[in-house]
Formats: sequence, structure tokens, C-alpha cells
Amino acid sequence: METNRQRAPELQVSRWFNTKEPVTLAGLRGRPVLLHSFQMLCPGCVSHAIPQARKVATMLQRTDLAVIGLHTVFEHHAAMTPVSLEAFIHEYGITFPVGVDMAGDNDPIPLTMRAYRFQGTPSTVLIDRDGDIAYQGFGQEDDIAMGLRLGMLLSQAGAA
Amino acid sequence: METNRQRAPELQVSRWFNTKEPVTLAGLRGRPVLLHSFQMLCPGCVSHAIPQARKVATMLQRTDLAVIGLHTVFEHHAAMTPVSLEAFIHEYGITFPVGVDMAGDNDPIPLTMRAYRFQGTPSTVLIDRDGDIAYQGFGQEDDIAMGLRLGMLLSQAGAA
Amino acid sequence: METNRQRAPELQVSRWFNTKEPVTLAGLRGRPVLLHSFQMLCPGCVSHAIPQARKVATMLQRTDLAVIGLHTVFEHHAAMTPVSLEAFIHEYGITFPVGVDMAGDNDPIPLTMRAYRFQGTPSTVLIDRDGDIAYQGFGQEDDIAMGLRLGMLLSQAGAA
Amino acid sequence: METNRQRAPELQVSRWFNTKEPVTLAGLRGRPVLLHSFQMLCPGCVSHAIPQARKVATMLQRTDLAVIGLHTVFEHHAAMTPVSLEAFIHEYGITFPVGVDMAGDNDPIPLTMRAYRFQGTPSTVLIDRDGDIAYQGFGQEDDIAMGLRLGMLLSQAGAA
Repeated sequence: METNRQRAPELQVSRWFNTKEPVTLAGLRGRPVLLHSFQMLCPGCVSHAIPQARKVATMLQRTDLAVIGLHTVFEHHAAMTPVSLEAFIHEYGITFPVGVDMAGDNDPIPLTMRAYRFQGTPSTVLIDRDGDIAYQGFGQEDDIAMGLRLGMLLSQAGAA
Repeated sequence: METNRQRAPELQVSRWFNTKEPVTLAGLRGRPVLLHSFQMLCPGCVSHAIPQARKVATMLQRTDLAVIGLHTVFEHHAAMTPVSLEAFIHEYGITFPVGVDMAGDNDPIPLTMRAYRFQGTPSTVLIDRDGDIAYQGFGQEDDIAMGLRLGMLLSQAGAA
Repeated sequence: METNRQRAPELQVSRWFNTKEPVTLAGLRGRPVLLHSFQMLCPGCVSHAIPQARKVATMLQRTDLAVIGLHTVFEHHAAMTPVSLEAFIHEYGITFPVGVDMAGDNDPIPLTMRAYRFQGTPSTVLIDRDGDIAYQGFGQEDDIAMGLRLGMLLSQAGAA
Repeated sequence: METNRQRAPELQVSRWFNTKEPVTLAGLRGRPVLLHSFQMLCPGCVSHAIPQARKVATMLQRTDLAVIGLHTVFEHHAAMTPVSLEAFIHEYGITFPVGVDMAGDNDPIPLTMRAYRFQGTPSTVLIDRDGDIAYQGFGQEDDIAMGLRLGMLLSQAGAA
């Protein structure tokens, strides 16, 4: 019996880009997931984390890894609307699914961000084939370290 | 008599950030000017040209060089409004004056961009102490080359 | 029965640095190995591959991965003597064991390089816990790809 | 009358590479000079200063700037002999003249290094058309700052 496992909270998304059907973690069960939380006006996201996520998505497109973007706006809400995000996704060549984290009532922090207790953007979550959180981090992730974690995640078989 | 000189067209700006008074090239006559044209959703601007302009502004703050930003929106107009630009300027730590290039009638290209015939963003214009264009270029500028041009520009005395 | 496995040829080394005892692959059986082949006057080694190997050695020092350097001199032999290599190892802060690939008779290619059929430097070999070659590549290795391969290598149990 | 001017000491060189005739500062009078002091086993030289000097030499080849390398060995003398330097110059694609700073008696510091009081490598000296030192610095030089200094140096007329 493992007691340290933590189930990854389900995504709460008000709008999706780059996908016809809404994406759910439940629907991805059995596959490892890289959940990449960003804001379009976050310099660290734009210079490092988004290019890294794009590169991972391209390098691992023949594996069963799912790369999912989450636009978690917790500041400058009027400046980062879905209209602006759509142009951003186009200009930065993002082709993996991106969800807009659902705004909460009377709280600048959106709902998925709150459920995961993200400290800010960029945030990275690796979810294993069983739907549990294998890694969660805040800030820029080193490329070698990101590769190591993904290599170990992909090597794991699910519990089922 | 010099015949190759080209007078730098005056700026046409609908709104300024980071300055109380509107900036005009006429008012800067006698000083060399780096005019930096960008769009907030232009990857080459964000990753290279804006950090370079910021660095130049800091390195040369004790000289009489004026660094002026110009937000020349020619695409995705709804995504790059002044509200979004204001948040962008804050997040990217831009402290030099930034003007919003004035929209033209029935033309996606704004007025100053049209007057200079910019090919896109980023664009760089170096204006000498006499108000003439010393250099105009499109795309990322090499750091050593940018330094060389600025060093020669600063070394020039005005005609007056 | 697997038929694609290829046993990693044993190291042939004339002199070791950074280790009291000679290192052999036989002695490392049961541990994964990163074998990093370089030349001290190889620009691609100095700018990318050696810093990457150093970083991997530091990041994974608490795992059972063994990082081994191999100085495979196949050109400019008079310029890359052990005396020069010793100063190089000091100046570049290399702390993992480094072996000098043994010179062959009447052949500029040293013996270990010949056994592995390296195309040049840098070359990278990943050896699994069973002593088989898991990956061999020539040239600069991408950081994310290197991390992925190491993550998968570390996740593998040995056959025994 | 200027009192701050300091005449650049003449080079003392035991061997030249990439030039048929020995180079002297006296012979370069009237031209601006970038004197680039390095050691082949100095990581900061190899990763930054030498590529920068190469780039400057290429960018400014149509100007009258002279780029001169000086191999100032003050440590690991047995590891950085002219034989090793020759291979290094070849591998790193250095095409401007490189002199070997002349060894002194009973002193690890070579003679030109002593005359200029270099603190270590890399060191950079800019010499104006009159043969005076316009700038001297130790360590990596920022690309924009290097460009600025060269732009101002090239803009200066000689006294004669």
C-alpha cells in the first residue's frame, strides 16, 4: 500500500484551442501527461518553458506522452483574454491542446491553478499512467532534468 | 552638398507609455536616437530585440542617446490593444518611452510604419543628431554590429 | 532470445586521471555507464559535450550511473599529450575518471576508438547494467534527448 | 596638452603564426588595433573571447582595424607549447596573426603581459591610431560594449 500517491486534480477549462474535443485527465488515463501551465505575458514562460514544451511535444510525438498546455491567468486578466491567447498560440507555433483555466468567483486565481496550488507560472506537472502526480515544479525546468523525468515516466508501466 | 541624406519622418503616435510628455523627433534634434519598432506578440522582438534595446538603454543612459520604442501593430490588432501592451511593458521591465503607432484608415499598417516603410517587426532605426536616418534595418540585429553602429553614431558631431 | 544486443567492448587505456584504480567496464557491471569520448582540442567537445557530461555527473551523483571520460586522440597527437590533458582536466574542472585511449601501432586511431568504431569526437556511449550498448552517437547530443535516454537507462533493471 | 595618454608598450614575441612578417605596433601606427590576449587552456577565452575576436576580425575586415592575438602563457607552461598552440589555432579557425608572448627569465609571467600588467586571460587592449591605449580590460567583454568601443575607436582620426 502506497500512501504518498496524490491523484492529479481534473482540469477545469472554459475554452480549448488546438483540439476539437475537450481534454480530460480521466480520458488520458493509461498515458503519461506533461501538463504545462503558463501565461502569455510571463517572460520566463515565453523565453524558456513554452519552447521547451514545444520541443518535448515534437521529440516525443511517437510515444504515448500527452502534452497539454494550461493558460492560468492570475494577473493582468484584461490583457490576456482568449482573443489575445489565440494570436499568441498562432505566433508562437503551439500545436498541442491548450485550455484556458476557468476563472473563479471573486478570486483572481483560476480553478485548476487553485486545485494544484501552483505558485505561479511557468508550472510543470508530470502525471503518470495511473493519473497520479509524479512531479510538480514551479519555474524554469532544466532541459537535462526534464528529459530525465520524462524518460523515467515513460519507462513506468501503469498499475493496472 | 550631400544627396544621400534622408530625413527621419516624424513619429505619429496615438498614446504614450513611460513618458509624461509626447516624444517628437523634432524635440530630440541634436541627440542621436535609437527607434525600436516592435509588436508584443512578435517572438523575435520578445526573445532578442526588446532585451537588446533595454540593454542599450541601460548601458548608454549617461550619454545623450534617446531610446524610443514604437508599438507598430500591423496584424492581430484585437490581440494587441493598449491594455495588453501596458501589462506587457510592465512584465518585460521596459522603462524607456513607448508610443503606440497611430492606426490608419482602412489599412492594417499604422502610419509611422508606413512612413518608414518598415518590412515588419522588429525594425531598428538609428537617427543622427541632425535628424537624418543613419541606419534602418529589419529583423534581429547582431549585438556587436549594434554596438559598432551606436559607437559611430555617438562619435558624430551634428552639422550645426 | 534477443539478437540485437551488442556487448560494449572493454576500455583500453594507457593512463588514468581522477581515479586511483583503473576503471573497467567489467568492474562496473550492474551499473549504467555514460562513456564520453572527447579530444581536448575539439571545439564541439569543449563548448558543449564536456560541460554536458560534467552536468550529468553532478546531477546524477546520487544514482548508480558511472560517468567515464575517454581521451581519444586521433589527430594532432603531439599537441594533445597527457601533460596537456592534465592541465586541461584541471582548468575545465573535470572530476570524473578520464582515461587516455591507448595508441595503436602504425595507426593514428587509438584502440578503444577502433573497437567502438567512433566516427570522431565527441562520441557518446550509454551502456546498460548488463554491459550492452544501449545507445551510441557521434556529435553534440541535445540536452533533453540526453536526459530522456539516461532516464530510461536508469529505469531499466539488469537481466540478472 | 593631454596628460592621461598612455603609450601602448611594444609587443615582445618569440614566434608568430598566421603572418609571414613579425607584427609590431610601430608598424601598425595610424591604424586602430584590437590586441587580444589569451591562453589556449583558458575556458573563458575558448568559450567567449576568442569567438568574439574572430567575429570582430571578420565583421571589420574591410576597415583598417588590425586584430592581433597574443598567447600569454603564465601557467601550465609545459601544457601550452607552440606545438599545441599551432593545433589549437587550426582547430579553432583563427586566421588573424597570433604571437607567442616571450618568456621571461625566472618568471612565469611573459614579457608583454608584464609590460601591460595584464591580470590574467582573456585580456583586451584597444590601441588608437596614435599608438595610445584607448581601453584595457580583463575578463569577458560584453558584445554590445565591445562594439561600442570599436565604433568609437574607428571614428577617431589620428593626431597626425
